[in-house]
Amino acid sequence: MAKPDKAAASQQPKHQQKAPAKAPDKSKENTLGITTKKAEDMPEWYAQVVLKAELAEYSQVKGCMIIRPNGYALWENIQAYFNNRIKAIGVRNAYFPLFIPESFFKKEASHAAGFKPEVAWIANTMDGGERLAVRPTSEAVICDSFSRWVRSHRDLPLRINQWCNVVRWETEATKLFLRSREFLWQEGHCAYATREEAERETMLMLEEYAKLCESLLALPVIMGKKTEKETFAGAVYSTAIESFMPDGKALQCGTSHYLGENFAKSFNIKFMGKDEEEHFAHTTSWGISTRLIGAMVMMHSDDKGLVLPPRVAPTQAVIVPIVLGDAVKVLERARNVAGMLKERDIVLDDRDEYTPGWKYADWEMRGVPVRIEIGPRDVEKDQVVMVRRDTGEKQFVKTADVKAALDKLLEDIQQNLYKRAKAFMDAHLTNVTDWSNLMTTIANKHMALASWCGERSCEEEIKTKTEGVSSRCIPFDQPKITGNCVHCGKKAKVWVLLSRAY
Amino acid sequence: MAKPDKAAASQQPKHQQKAPAKAPDKSKENTLGITTKKAEDMPEWYAQVVLKAELAEYSQVKGCMIIRPNGYALWENIQAYFNNRIKAIGVRNAYFPLFIPESFFKKEASHAAGFKPEVAWIANTMDGGERLAVRPTSEAVICDSFSRWVRSHRDLPLRINQWCNVVRWETEATKLFLRSREFLWQEGHCAYATREEAERETMLMLEEYAKLCESLLALPVIMGKKTEKETFAGAVYSTAIESFMPDGKALQCGTSHYLGENFAKSFNIKFMGKDEEEHFAHTTSWGISTRLIGAMVMMHSDDKGLVLPPRVAPTQAVIVPIVLGDAVKVLERARNVAGMLKERDIVLDDRDEYTPGWKYADWEMRGVPVRIEIGPRDVEKDQVVMVRRDTGEKQFVKTADVKAALDKLLEDIQQNLYKRAKAFMDAHLTNVTDWSNLMTTIANKHMALASWCGERSCEEEIKTKTEGVSSRCIPFDQPKITGNCVHCGKKAKVWVLLSRAY
Repeated sequence: MAKPDKAAASQQPKHQQKAPAKAPDKSKENTLGITTKKAEDMPEWYAQVVLKAELAEYSQVKGCMIIRPNGYALWENIQAYFNNRIKAIGVRNAYFPLFIPESFFKKEASHAAGFKPEVAWIANTMDGGERLAVRPTSEAVICDSFSRWVRSHRDLPLRINQWCNVVRWETEATKLFLRSREFLWQEGHCAYATREEAERETMLMLEEYAKLCESLLALPVIMGKKTEKETFAGAVYSTAIESFMPDGKALQCGTSHYLGENFAKSFNIKFMGKDEEEHFAHTTSWGISTRLIGAMVMMHSDDKGLVLPPRVAPTQAVIVPIVLGDAVKVLERARNVAGMLKERDIVLDDRDEYTPGWKYADWEMRGVPVRIEIGPRDVEKDQVVMVRRDTGEKQFVKTADVKAALDKLLEDIQQNLYKRAKAFMDAHLTNVTDWSNLMTTIANKHMALASWCGERSCEEEIKTKTEGVSSRCIPFDQPKITGNCVHCGKKAKVWVLLSRAY
Repeated sequence: MAKPDKAAASQQPKHQQKAPAKAPDKSKENTLGITTKKAEDMPEWYAQVVLKAELAEYSQVKGCMIIRPNGYALWENIQAYFNNRIKAIGVRNAYFPLFIPESFFKKEASHAAGFKPEVAWIANTMDGGERLAVRPTSEAVICDSFSRWVRSHRDLPLRINQWCNVVRWETEATKLFLRSREFLWQEGHCAYATREEAERETMLMLEEYAKLCESLLALPVIMGKKTEKETFAGAVYSTAIESFMPDGKALQCGTSHYLGENFAKSFNIKFMGKDEEEHFAHTTSWGISTRLIGAMVMMHSDDKGLVLPPRVAPTQAVIVPIVLGDAVKVLERARNVAGMLKERDIVLDDRDEYTPGWKYADWEMRGVPVRIEIGPRDVEKDQVVMVRRDTGEKQFVKTADVKAALDKLLEDIQQNLYKRAKAFMDAHLTNVTDWSNLMTTIANKHMALASWCGERSCEEEIKTKTEGVSSRCIPFDQPKITGNCVHCGKKAKVWVLLSRAY
């Protein structure tokens, strides 16, 4: 059997990001469009979409990426949405140091062991020579602060979040947004007085992540608990949301961990309870990263380039005036229409050095959800042409109705992208209860919801035998258990989601 | 003569951030308040304000700081204000790698030399062993991208900004917000087709910084050009805004550099002009950092704790119900008033475990601009008591007028803080044209606007002889030159701002 995971990983995109010799005019570059089809070579297609839509590019620093303005605007929209949600829950943003002393890191033994292989260290040391890690995650440094901030039950719950960069010294090939040595994320860290509250909010944050994916990014996800093998280093248990990409690989979109008293005991986070006794706090952590952008791009985009859900798109519509003959009237109308839509994020593309056709292709590449064409005949008929990016459908709209029509169209596109992705996911999720069905399912690039005995040894053997199929999660939504374990044949205890994955 | 700079730097605040043994109730800690007077020991007072208002704390990692939620909220408000301003100008946010290859860094020789002493390196290297710096600033890595992004005059102007962390391996003692090895900032990087445009926007960004300081932070500044000695490493010239702190030291609040073709030539940023010839771009860079928070805190705060300008304050008013006897009516009224003020950021402090007096002191420590007291007699009289944080003045306001009164009061406070700071600055700026006047001026903790020959050697000797008085800038607003150089006695060419500084 081939190794799709590794094969894809070692493949560098054929599209060169270094532009050829000297191209004084960009128009020629862009009209080339994506040179590979999504269905034929997904890794190459994906890299081209990200590069040509100018979302990100490779850095000369191996393993790092440059997030270009078009890509960073998506991250800003995700931040704005999520800050709004978490602040309503009582989470407050803060900022902790980039560097973590080795001794902090080692306080929670399984945490240190879990991250050890991928930690980057700096050459400068602490006084006394102690090494400093570049943060791969901040439990250690934040728990140290919590040990000072938490004294009484009145200080709880304590809900902190930070938006920052983290570094994990990956050795596999870089995939823009999906795998890089440095990436941007948010990491929430909370402390609670009771297990119940900590567990409830672990789940609450996972639900927030699912809402973000589904309502903002039009990305359906499956919520579940990680198996013991896949649990975050130092956690009691981990929960996650998983999406499923068109190339038959799952992609973890967010995780929320219940850390129990593990970190509280290692870092001495204690509080005086109402009962006048000292207790350890229960802590949680939860994170999403810029890889969400990669998932969204891969899910919705097509052979013409990027497709963006309207709610996260920095530009929701572009107006392209078709200037033939009577330029004055067309431009005047285009500006009027732009004025009618000023509550939306729109662009009037009145550059005169490009043809309308070139502009159509350019804005399609950039994923703008709606194109509004206005030509001389449209001015005469008092109408515009609206073209949706997701399906390419055209409609004629009376000028007076343009605002209402755009509102409706954007909402339709948002819903359509979600429905399309959901239908894809549903069609690629197969229940399996025996080994040969599992093999067929994986070969067909489906996810398998497999009956499983729950033993770690079985999970590990499945991964070895399939050269990379891993457990994604144990979905919270469990069908009734009927069969035997897909691998060992013993009585099944649970359904587990198995798939190749990013 | 004493060395105020060094003396202050080596002084660790007496207030211990590690809380004593076990204090199950935080109330006792806070009611202690600031134990030092601003006028008596500014460094200790400042550290206590920052720690006790919970803006930031020292990290166990020497030289790093933890920005707590109260402090980070100020940074978020600065970000929101400034993003709004720069996006209107056409600047777009992006994100570039944390790590910079040594070879990039060395491309602009004077840039590399200028930053060399304070660069932190990571232990992990590039393939081939090349060292990687943790960014102290990002000209090198961003100019490398610009060399790919800029091809034609149509790609210009290119205006990019990033909000990120930077690291400079300082050896002097940490001062929260003011001097730390890691800090947060924004760095703008722009490329233009012509020198004129680049210079015009260098100035435009400096003016934006001045507006931010003056209108948002109520911090008056002096705009000027840096002397050659103080110019940013690699720049043709640097401009800066300087504020003046109550302890008699200037504090640089922002810089905007015209880099000429220096970086364009080192990184090969060329474009095909309208004239069909190749040209080097003209680049600029500009930055402000979290030290702005330190400047604002030091300028406005007092012996009771933090004082915040209303426009940047995360909480603009706190309502404290005085619950004696008839709790129901008072709480009901307090909630009604909170509802009337819902467009503002207000807090209703209805915690029943603290007395009103404790709450007053607590919110004063946290710098909330207005306190609204509501007691049983106020309910009877259909009024509230409004107390402004900056002056302590009380006023009675009819319940129906509470919104208009608060709006007016917040605006008054904002203006008053600015006026107070401006009056302080004006009263501490002395024109000097001879050495003995300069000595007296500095001894009196004033800034000196000194007549100067313009020679670097004179500037350096002044610094040596005074043990630390440096040129802050050559203010754009220049009085007519009359006398001789304050140091060498030759004919003066220009007025230069001299001061001890942070």
